[in-house]
Amino acid sequence: MSLLDELIQSLSRLPGVGKKSASRIAYHLLTTDQEFNTRLGRTIHSIRHHIIRCRTCGSFTQRDQDPCSICTAVNRDRSSICIVEHPQDVITLEATGAYQGLFHVLDGVISPLDGIGPEQLNFNKLLARIKDEGVTEVIVATNPTEEGDTTALYISHIVKELGIKVSRLASGIPVGGDIEYADRITIARSLRGRTILD
Amino acid sequence: MSLLDELIQSLSRLPGVGKKSASRIAYHLLTTDQEFNTRLGRTIHSIRHHIIRCRTCGSFTQRDQDPCSICTAVNRDRSSICIVEHPQDVITLEATGAYQGLFHVLDGVISPLDGIGPEQLNFNKLLARIKDEGVTEVIVATNPTEEGDTTALYISHIVKELGIKVSRLASGIPVGGDIEYADRITIARSLRGRTILD
Repeated sequence: MSLLDELIQSLSRLPGVGKKSASRIAYHLLTTDQEFNTRLGRTIHSIRHHIIRCRTCGSFTQRDQDPCSICTAVNRDRSSICIVEHPQDVITLEATGAYQGLFHVLDGVISPLDGIGPEQLNFNKLLARIKDEGVTEVIVATNPTEEGDTTALYISHIVKELGIKVSRLASGIPVGGDIEYADRITIARSLRGRTILD
Repeated sequence: MSLLDELIQSLSRLPGVGKKSASRIAYHLLTTDQEFNTRLGRTIHSIRHHIIRCRTCGSFTQRDQDPCSICTAVNRDRSSICIVEHPQDVITLEATGAYQGLFHVLDGVISPLDGIGPEQLNFNKLLARIKDEGVTEVIVATNPTEEGDTTALYISHIVKELGIKVSRLASGIPVGGDIEYADRITIARSLRGRTILD
């Protein structure tokens, strides 16, 4: 196998990149400037060395900043903790600027069919944090999927027992979306979660 | 800017990769095995060193095989030369297995608006090859675009003067396509280029 075939095969293993796009990217790399290839190649090679997971919340952070900048920030609301499935969800939520509390990354969801229970996830640390940091509200931001729902329910049971408020991100018709094209389950949820207008 | 942001920015410069897909790929690289990252990083870094352009036809070839395997093949039809815009077109046409002749890569198309005339393309080499190699048919495989058409016309004029047959890839409704959804220009072309059934 030539190096070009190897490159195309490796690229097509990336998420969202099929065989055709992989070829297109490979041909682009063959005609782009070498400086770009050098930098991209080095970054891909070393990214996992430089970007690690925060020891406290589990989100991505630079190797020289652990715990991460959110966990160590002095101006954030430490009474609220938002639970997400994956470290990238922290970046997505942060980009909105709509949340000022802390985060906790579960690293997955409860999925009995895949043999993933609370023990396989980052739960023990979560409970310790809730108790230690004086948290008064837990926001569950798992995805509105079957596994995300199960996980949210599980967290809700545990956290309520500790006498702490639990909430979950609203699920419904996306802003700019169309009721006509929304699926029935989403519409049903948006009805259940309707908000009072005043 | 963190290395993660730099990676996302570099990835989003690749063809067909937007900001969202770039983030998705970057997060994937942060969780995949380091061995994959090492190999992909090294391949991207060194691909332009190992894969070069054939000195004869201009298609991609390994550094230790120049002229390329098509130009040096003993079992190919050397009387026919297929002219393409880009080196990747050679790979696409080869994959069909429907052509057994030689190739020639123009490295673009004639585009007066962009200041690209025959002098900016790989034309002189083409004429030399046609004369030297005893070519009897030239197949123009430029894209069915305005520039591709202009280029085909230009080649046709020159090559006919040499008393050599010139043909062009058929343009029409794609196999599996639907006349109802084809544009008028494509349908008009498919009418002009209709083939006799027997």
